Amino acid sequence: MILSALLTSVGINLGICFLFFTLYSILRKQPINARLYAPRLVAERKLKDTGFNLERLLPSAGWVKRAWELSEDDLLESSGLDGVVFMRIITFSLKVFSIAALIGMAILLPVNFTGSQLKIDISDLPNKSLDAFSISNVNNGSNRLWIHFCAIYTFTAAVCCLLYYEYKYLSLKRIDYFYASQPQPRQFTVLVRSIPTVSGQRLDESVEHFFREYHPSTYISHTIVRRTNKLQQLTEVPAAFVYFKSRFGAAIALHMQQGINPTKWITEEAPEPDDVYWPFFSTSYLGRWICKLGMLVGTFLLTVLFFLPVLVVQSLTHLEQLERYFPFLKNILRLTVVSQVITGYLPSLILQLFLSFIPPIMKTMSSIQGYISTSEIQKSACSKMIRFTTWNVFFANVLSGSALYGFDLILEPKKVPLLLAQGVPAQATFFISYVVTSGWTSLSSELFQLMALVFSYIKRIFSGKESDDLVVPSIPYEKEIPKILSLGLLGITYFFLAPLILPFILVYFCMGYLIFRNQLLNVYAPKFEMSGKYWPIVHNSTIFSLVLMHIIAMGIFVLKELPLASTLSAPLPVLTLLFNEYCRQRFLPIFTTFATECLVAKDKKEQDNPRMAEFLDKLVDAYKDPALKPKVNDNNNDDNRLTSPLLRSGEIRV
Amino acid sequence: MILSALLTSVGINLGICFLFFTLYSILRKQPINARLYAPRLVAERKLKDTGFNLERLLPSAGWVKRAWELSEDDLLESSGLDGVVFMRIITFSLKVFSIAALIGMAILLPVNFTGSQLKIDISDLPNKSLDAFSISNVNNGSNRLWIHFCAIYTFTAAVCCLLYYEYKYLSLKRIDYFYASQPQPRQFTVLVRSIPTVSGQRLDESVEHFFREYHPSTYISHTIVRRTNKLQQLTEVPAAFVYFKSRFGAAIALHMQQGINPTKWITEEAPEPDDVYWPFFSTSYLGRWICKLGMLVGTFLLTVLFFLPVLVVQSLTHLEQLERYFPFLKNILRLTVVSQVITGYLPSLILQLFLSFIPPIMKTMSSIQGYISTSEIQKSACSKMIRFTTWNVFFANVLSGSALYGFDLILEPKKVPLLLAQGVPAQATFFISYVVTSGWTSLSSELFQLMALVFSYIKRIFSGKESDDLVVPSIPYEKEIPKILSLGLLGITYFFLAPLILPFILVYFCMGYLIFRNQLLNVYAPKFEMSGKYWPIVHNSTIFSLVLMHIIAMGIFVLKELPLASTLSAPLPVLTLLFNEYCRQRFLPIFTTFATECLVAKDKKEQDNPRMAEFLDKLVDAYKDPALKPKVNDNNNDDNRLTSPLLRSGEIRV
Repeated sequence: MILSALLTSVGINLGICFLFFTLYSILRKQPINARLYAPRLVAERKLKDTGFNLERLLPSAGWVKRAWELSEDDLLESSGLDGVVFMRIITFSLKVFSIAALIGMAILLPVNFTGSQLKIDISDLPNKSLDAFSISNVNNGSNRLWIHFCAIYTFTAAVCCLLYYEYKYLSLKRIDYFYASQPQPRQFTVLVRSIPTVSGQRLDESVEHFFREYHPSTYISHTIVRRTNKLQQLTEVPAAFVYFKSRFGAAIALHMQQGINPTKWITEEAPEPDDVYWPFFSTSYLGRWICKLGMLVGTFLLTVLFFLPVLVVQSLTHLEQLERYFPFLKNILRLTVVSQVITGYLPSLILQLFLSFIPPIMKTMSSIQGYISTSEIQKSACSKMIRFTTWNVFFANVLSGSALYGFDLILEPKKVPLLLAQGVPAQATFFISYVVTSGWTSLSSELFQLMALVFSYIKRIFSGKESDDLVVPSIPYEKEIPKILSLGLLGITYFFLAPLILPFILVYFCMGYLIFRNQLLNVYAPKFEMSGKYWPIVHNSTIFSLVLMHIIAMGIFVLKELPLASTLSAPLPVLTLLFNEYCRQRFLPIFTTFATECLVAKDKKEQDNPRMAEFLDKLVDAYKDPALKPKVNDNNNDDNRLTSPLLRSGEIRV
Repeated sequence: MILSALLTSVGINLGICFLFFTLYSILRKQPINARLYAPRLVAERKLKDTGFNLERLLPSAGWVKRAWELSEDDLLESSGLDGVVFMRIITFSLKVFSIAALIGMAILLPVNFTGSQLKIDISDLPNKSLDAFSISNVNNGSNRLWIHFCAIYTFTAAVCCLLYYEYKYLSLKRIDYFYASQPQPRQFTVLVRSIPTVSGQRLDESVEHFFREYHPSTYISHTIVRRTNKLQQLTEVPAAFVYFKSRFGAAIALHMQQGINPTKWITEEAPEPDDVYWPFFSTSYLGRWICKLGMLVGTFLLTVLFFLPVLVVQSLTHLEQLERYFPFLKNILRLTVVSQVITGYLPSLILQLFLSFIPPIMKTMSSIQGYISTSEIQKSACSKMIRFTTWNVFFANVLSGSALYGFDLILEPKKVPLLLAQGVPAQATFFISYVVTSGWTSLSSELFQLMALVFSYIKRIFSGKESDDLVVPSIPYEKEIPKILSLGLLGITYFFLAPLILPFILVYFCMGYLIFRNQLLNVYAPKFEMSGKYWPIVHNSTIFSLVLMHIIAMGIFVLKELPLASTLSAPLPVLTLLFNEYCRQRFLPIFTTFATECLVAKDKKEQDNPRMAEFLDKLVDAYKDPALKPKVNDNNNDDNRLTSPLLRSGEIRV
């Protein structure tokens, strides 16, 4: 891809962004669109109708100001810890790429540009690729490469520092959030699976007997999970929600192996009551196992088969190939505008389109895989998407040029650094275009909600009125976090190779900062609370990007005939992984469970509260399959959830 | 190595074995050797002096009869569960190799021998290698190879069945053993490390405060670990043994994260009081980390550098090379006897000699690595030794012929099956000789204790009398288990390649069965109780051997031009690993911890026992650094341990 094609792509996307922003700032002020652009405010009845005035028809940036002014405490109050973590992922990336852009643009870019390896004629720059700005232009064996070497060390140290302080800050936040939380049923409940059936004893009696015997001082009661089978009869599921008097009591049952046979009496953390994914309880143990295995294979196949669209995308960036395959298009393709659109804008757009089908598929796969809560399904889909995007956006595009596809990488790991060092720099311009399309435009359409807008107009035209059910969405983490992390991956790996990508990424995160704060204020309401469990995923992903950068650097220094720098880079991945290991020991346990110290302190604080007895009374009714509840209850439930997202049925205020 | 050289080696070893057996059966009856051949009986004062009679001077097999008649219950009584597990490793191997020998000798050997691939002249067999009996002799592409294919499937299924029943049997035994055990201090104790120091509070007060606050109903007391520093002063070690009223109470503190900061208040299982490895408490947290890392690197280097002696050994088996390097030896080397001893017996003997230096080194390394009990040090040294032997006995010998040494294996994993398929069959005769030397002779010298006998005679001659301190040894697991497993590895991998090795291995295990039972009766007394924790190591090791066999088989079938059989073998390692995963979930937790069900049942059974109060009173004095105890106590301690190994100071009978 040449410079002018890239500029075409940037131009198109910039145009779309401005259009969307302008339309949004007008349309959002029309009351008719309130359910689309501020469903949360509508549900919370916070929207005031100011009557018609002329200002409504003019674009304005008032929403930017409100989004800017939102404090972290307000965010915590309105969107929970997960909302805060989500915004901190963006601010963390902003910090990382500010440092990267500073080093990259001020130091590395001039060094690259003043090299003479590629013998690029400056006057003909628009028709050349952007390699003049990349490390490829530095002369082989030049001592200037030591500047890149130092930059890599400095940047790694800076990112690790940021990672450490972020992990520490969020750990403390998570504990504070726990101390400040109202009692929730899931804190006092444990899900027990694989309850052994004793002949002559009902399941109910087995559970009662077991917990009365082994947890006499903390056990309160339990609810056996019941499902209707295909004949509409209630059936014998060997799982139960068991309730305890204290959080510590529930944690003991959770963390200790219960039965002598480790495959029986398996205890798991209970999700919030309306977070339970009931359908999965119908599956047997063997069924669960097969489902899990099947879905692992399925995810793998999906990831591999996605190579085909990537190939199509990559063939578009090489116009000559296209001409050869479709000779009748030759005349059209020779038009400058057409060729620039095809090589510059189209590839990223097509990739973007194909990618948009994947998150729902991954979510379905995770739900079959055997998670018992929708929040866990979402988290698992998010992890799957990260692996998918890393492989298919980064590796597939980088390696599609070389003869061997991914499998050989696993079979011949010693070729990896050199292969990456050859493939990665060549894709710099494509990825800049990808950042603009996948980043900028998708952000502005997130704000503008183009598809939803069109659908709502069509609906209104045909049915004449809006439907009554207002749906307040929650952030689609499984879509947004992988996208943010994939741009982070590109930014980190290209930091020293082609620093020209950094300003584009920085703009993305600046826009994201404002747009997502606005969306959290007006659109998204938290459905379930994960209490910040997404952060460790982001941390690991960043470490992966760093190590990948180190491996590429080692390869590049060999290619650029400075093997000493390659050798001296070797301690970097080792040190980074040691740092990661330290973080894993120091912080990760805080994100997976709560310590005795926390649990007992919280229990003690509340033991004298007279309303705890009332809470514990209500607790035994908390976990009921909604399909088995009377219809009226069901509606109440939904209403609750919509009116105040942090006052859901799952939480009972004391 | 040719057949006649192998026969020389077998002959030499057989001779040594007979000599040792005969000498042992005479010498063991002399009262002067009682401390050497029956130290355990001496310590337990079970040895009767029958006075002199002529029978004493004649070899007899009475000890064989007594060893044969020993029942498992007697063994459990006298040697604990670890003794039983050790003997079951041998009986398990006996079962495995009986099946292997049956299939191998009755079916595979005739098939191999009637092949004509190698065009071996039967009349000149003594001067040929043993390849006529190996799979190499089966014609390429022959359908007879399907017999090998079926044999592999059958054998794998049989071994997995045996593994399953063994794991199940030992799981039940472990639980029974726990139920039948006397209360032991370690069951009621938890070791707490990394106690945070609060200014103005003594360590003692911190611990007291923490456990009174968070475990008020089960905490009894604690002992701060104190060490003398180089100035002979008592110092501020931030570790303590904390005592609880019940096993369940201790288990809760053990399995739950205690402090909010996961790197503080770290709880670990307490070892038995006289199993504690005190010196290690002096090391700081950072020191421990560096030690651990250093020892990992150390083990790796030791394993790699050991390639040098292996190279020497392998060069001996190729006589021509030796002649080239040392031309002046040519005449001697041409003598048939000399050449046969050098190529047949010497290589295994040298390898054996070098190998015997390794276990003490590994034990030292494990003790530096940071385990707090001598039994854990021994277990870790055992695991290290298994990896070491697998690499240096098996892989190094197999690959020394090929151009690339181990590292390339990791870097180019797709070459592994073919490389092994080429290398492994070629070493069949060397490994038969290794089995005879490392197996048979070392077993008989285990019985005869040659070195100890010589030393005791020298000592007696120079000092005029025996020393007073009688040392009853315990089984050197870190030496014996890796040896048994390495022979198991050879047997499993060579089962279908060169079945001629199987009778030699079977003889080894038959001898081992008798000799080790005899040694457990007369020589070894258990020092510490691991309650069968060695079994999972053996299980994993056997699974590894099976999968290695499958990989070699896949390579061999390709080499023998029957690629379909190679493809159809691919499910085997997958199925084996799935089986292993099932066992890991079903049985492994039983070997790492005890379930709530066990602990509470055991606690309840004893709660009405009036002597429990007395036990709990004594408990607080159980953990004291012997270096800080008055000298008199120390002696008592040792006496206790020697007189009755299962009635050690660590156990207080109720």
